Amino acid sequence: MNALWLEDGQLSVREIDVPPADGEALVRVTLSGICGTDLELARGYYPYAGVLGHEFVGEVVESSEPSWVGERVVGEINAACGSCAMCRGGHPTHCEARTVLGIVARDGAHAEYVRVPQANLHRVPNGVSDEAAVFAEPLAAALEILEQVHIRPGDRVLLVGAGRLGQLVGRVLALTGAHVRVLARYERQVELLATAGVACIAEDEVGERCWDVVVEATGSPSGLQTARAALRPRGALVLKSTYRGEVTLDLGPFVVDEITIVGSRCGPFAPALELLARGEIDPVPLIETRYPLASGVEAMQAAARSGAMKVLLEP
Amino acid sequence: MNALWLEDGQLSVREIDVPPADGEALVRVTLSGICGTDLELARGYYPYAGVLGHEFVGEVVESSEPSWVGERVVGEINAACGSCAMCRGGHPTHCEARTVLGIVARDGAHAEYVRVPQANLHRVPNGVSDEAAVFAEPLAAALEILEQVHIRPGDRVLLVGAGRLGQLVGRVLALTGAHVRVLARYERQVELLATAGVACIAEDEVGERCWDVVVEATGSPSGLQTARAALRPRGALVLKSTYRGEVTLDLGPFVVDEITIVGSRCGPFAPALELLARGEIDPVPLIETRYPLASGVEAMQAAARSGAMKVLLEP
Repeated sequence: MNALWLEDGQLSVREIDVPPADGEALVRVTLSGICGTDLELARGYYPYAGVLGHEFVGEVVESSEPSWVGERVVGEINAACGSCAMCRGGHPTHCEARTVLGIVARDGAHAEYVRVPQANLHRVPNGVSDEAAVFAEPLAAALEILEQVHIRPGDRVLLVGAGRLGQLVGRVLALTGAHVRVLARYERQVELLATAGVACIAEDEVGERCWDVVVEATGSPSGLQTARAALRPRGALVLKSTYRGEVTLDLGPFVVDEITIVGSRCGPFAPALELLARGEIDPVPLIETRYPLASGVEAMQAAARSGAMKVLLEP
Repeated sequence: MNALWLEDGQLSVREIDVPPADGEALVRVTLSGICGTDLELARGYYPYAGVLGHEFVGEVVESSEPSWVGERVVGEINAACGSCAMCRGGHPTHCEARTVLGIVARDGAHAEYVRVPQANLHRVPNGVSDEAAVFAEPLAAALEILEQVHIRPGDRVLLVGAGRLGQLVGRVLALTGAHVRVLARYERQVELLATAGVACIAEDEVGERCWDVVVEATGSPSGLQTARAALRPRGALVLKSTYRGEVTLDLGPFVVDEITIVGSRCGPFAPALELLARGEIDPVPLIETRYPLASGVEAMQAAARSGAMKVLLEP
């Protein structure tokens, strides 16, 4: 089968064997989505060799639970051991022995077929198109914020960053009824949010120390600085991006202002699918373009352009 | 009256006028306690000139509410405006226009008399000695952790640091029933905690990524590093010390592990007095020595010695 392969910083589409199900589920991929993490892996920020990709929708062709064969599914990306302290404590996404689809020691979904633990799969409701379902993973990541921080309808919430993930975060935050504003960089980002009824704010209108919750989704030190300055004392600062390398912080004021900083990563799939099924979130306008899997290297280049939205791959 | 005065980094006991009540309350100080913040102010870490001191117990001699005259009191240290967004939002300790007793633009309590807003005062229950009551402020600060983080009886909680504040934090944490262990530096700290029934742990027994909540009370980058390494994924890291200057953190792992960092400062006085009245917390063994106010400069030197516990001043 074809697969988008990363090795020693080199991307290529290569022919590899279809993986055996091996006690898990084998999914024929219908669509996969390119994520910022794919780009970071390709840039060598984390060591990884193998098939890239962790956002997908597909059909089960083989499974440890035969009733799932033929089902249209999306899948969680962390493959947990089920027996470590984190798994037993109810935190399988933090399993200390986990492999992660297309990220840590497990081949990913930019391929014709992907092997995924059966327990990671979720059926896609009938009314949800493949084009929407392929956003289940990043939408779940956006929802993780609401799992971690209680956002009240009366809160003022600022989102810094309106890229691929930021777009979904903005839409999720707006569902709370809170006063949500987004600090976006590109006009296209502002327009996409506007069509979803999410309002942006100009940088000089943000103000200082006046937002109850600030979500940082740029992953840049300057975004972090902006986010910190905007947050009120006793507010919550959600870090929704991974940061590369070290960041220097003056922690004293964080203590004096009793700030809560919350790191946020993978989230719950069931509510993501629920919101897609109910049409509360429509991610389809975020699709920038789609490429055949055979043009996966070009697709990665397209996804790496400044301001690029979601690029999909079709095996 | 005599007062311990700080100006241009110079400490002295000097004769100044008794302050007018000026619409607030005037308290004759019975005892005051030297805190780490007093030492940091004296070292010039923050700009302040005036009377030092913010931990006190005393008797009201004049007040905007005459029924309080003659009452034995302790007092909250943040004098709030009552009208800014933080005050209106129920966070008076974060008032944006606040003055702070002996810390920000308001004379402190290492003096014969101190002026405090009447609203800041709390009556000391009869059964609580002056020697215990003078700990109300730092005990309230220790209790702030429980206001901010839900510590469950089944949690494993590590406290890094067993100095003046750490001693109180350890005692408060132990009240939750959680598995609490303290990483202490000096044998004397271990002994004091042991008499309160709080167990210490050797550094090589702490382990990595296995504590649900870690409280950092050393204020040093190395303490912070120890605390971070001990914390499990999705755990809470409470910063209970102010940090001087910038700290460099690798934030990526904080996001991947979905860590919550909570800055923690001043806390609630009513439960502090309640715990003292019920005898649940006995801070009196933490008194290292007491000096007459006239020897305030020597008292500050004694408090600055490594491992020194609480030094009290008697006007």
